[in-house]
Amino acid sequence: MEINVIAFDADDTLWHNESLYSLAQERFREIVRSYVGGDGALDELYATEMANLPLFGYGIKSFALSMIETAVRLGGNEVAASAIGEIIEIAKEMKRAPVGLLEHVEDAIQALSESHKLMLLTKGDLMDQERKIANSGLAAYFDLIEVVTEKTEEVYRAVLDKHQILPDRFLMVGNSLRSDILPVVALGGHAVYIPYHLTWAHETVAVHPEEALAYVELEHIGLLPGFVEQLVRHRAESHAEQSSIEKEEGR
Amino acid sequence: MEINVIAFDADDTLWHNESLYSLAQERFREIVRSYVGGDGALDELYATEMANLPLFGYGIKSFALSMIETAVRLGGNEVAASAIGEIIEIAKEMKRAPVGLLEHVEDAIQALSESHKLMLLTKGDLMDQERKIANSGLAAYFDLIEVVTEKTEEVYRAVLDKHQILPDRFLMVGNSLRSDILPVVALGGHAVYIPYHLTWAHETVAVHPEEALAYVELEHIGLLPGFVEQLVRHRAESHAEQSSIEKEEGR
Repeated sequence: MEINVIAFDADDTLWHNESLYSLAQERFREIVRSYVGGDGALDELYATEMANLPLFGYGIKSFALSMIETAVRLGGNEVAASAIGEIIEIAKEMKRAPVGLLEHVEDAIQALSESHKLMLLTKGDLMDQERKIANSGLAAYFDLIEVVTEKTEEVYRAVLDKHQILPDRFLMVGNSLRSDILPVVALGGHAVYIPYHLTWAHETVAVHPEEALAYVELEHIGLLPGFVEQLVRHRAESHAEQSSIEKEEGR
Repeated sequence: MEINVIAFDADDTLWHNESLYSLAQERFREIVRSYVGGDGALDELYATEMANLPLFGYGIKSFALSMIETAVRLGGNEVAASAIGEIIEIAKEMKRAPVGLLEHVEDAIQALSESHKLMLLTKGDLMDQERKIANSGLAAYFDLIEVVTEKTEEVYRAVLDKHQILPDRFLMVGNSLRSDILPVVALGGHAVYIPYHLTWAHETVAVHPEEALAYVELEHIGLLPGFVEQLVRHRAESHAEQSSIEKEEGR
């Protein structure tokens, strides 16, 4: 038995992303602080983002429109046009931001690409993701790249079907329990959870105890090649054991 | 010889799109008309869209951000927050707009799907396009769906390679000379140009006389099944002729 394909989430798994949003939120908080104090502005922004998600989806443009809508709602006609212009500028700076790889990413991806087929499986704005993949310097290590609008169990099933991958031979690696881990585990796939130091509230989720047994958590991606080696060896051994039991039983 | 795959552009080829943008532009013109008269507002908007294209790409969210940026630039602090809120509302209405199929589309697609593999090959915002494909009622007729960020010769080449389609057996149908016709012709593929009554200035392009010989223009998509039948028959005949010449020559 083998793992045929190892798939990686991109944002906050391979490169920094939430930290960009976090900085942008701090700038937003400053822009609207005369209308609402403390964390109220960010709570309002999050509520707007959630309300807009079905229409606008993920990504920087959607985030920018939600910031603008929230500023207008909080400040009414006190909001200066220059403040709106500043929010658009924040979005442009986010788009232009260089791709910052997380520590250990390049070594881990290179090592794993020598033994496994690698897939980049990310949700969000197609153009954002293509730009980041191109700028990451990692594109050549990936055999398959899939950008989807959501990472639900159905979407994983469709991606696996499309590439004729058996769930049991598929390992997903990511920082979001909600998008990367639980739907894959539910399908019978393998998952490695590598938390990022920031998690967008939308990606947080409660985990049932039996679900927690079905995936592995690693501290950083540098530990992944060793884990995959162990997993493959362990599965090979338990498969050999199983075969010899089957033989003894005369099946 | 055969055509193996017929690919269709989506916006303004299968369903109305530019008309939605056109209505939105009229509303935008109203919103900013106290700062700039006549077509000046739309010229400014177009300039903003072109400047933002490399960062924001195509689609409704990008268009909305460009409208907001243009309003702020034209009106400065005279622009009321409520006007900005109205622009965001325009974007939401565009996102919610039902998908309006063009005349003859359903019959033509159904007929062609019985004899050919069909591909939907569209550029733009992934989420917009997925929503429209799902709402169009046409998804079941398409064997392949590809959403890309731009439709250049390189992108067409990559899509054909990915699905192992020879250019000579590929027919692209669309309303944009720039995105649907010329890059396909340059690759050695076949193309049918079906103009829509509105064309976004960005999609207009000058056509050299020799390029104009390399594609066919049809008045509406209802004429496509007949054209494809003729094309296949003609190619079969010229192929048979060629074979018999080759035989006579003893090759």
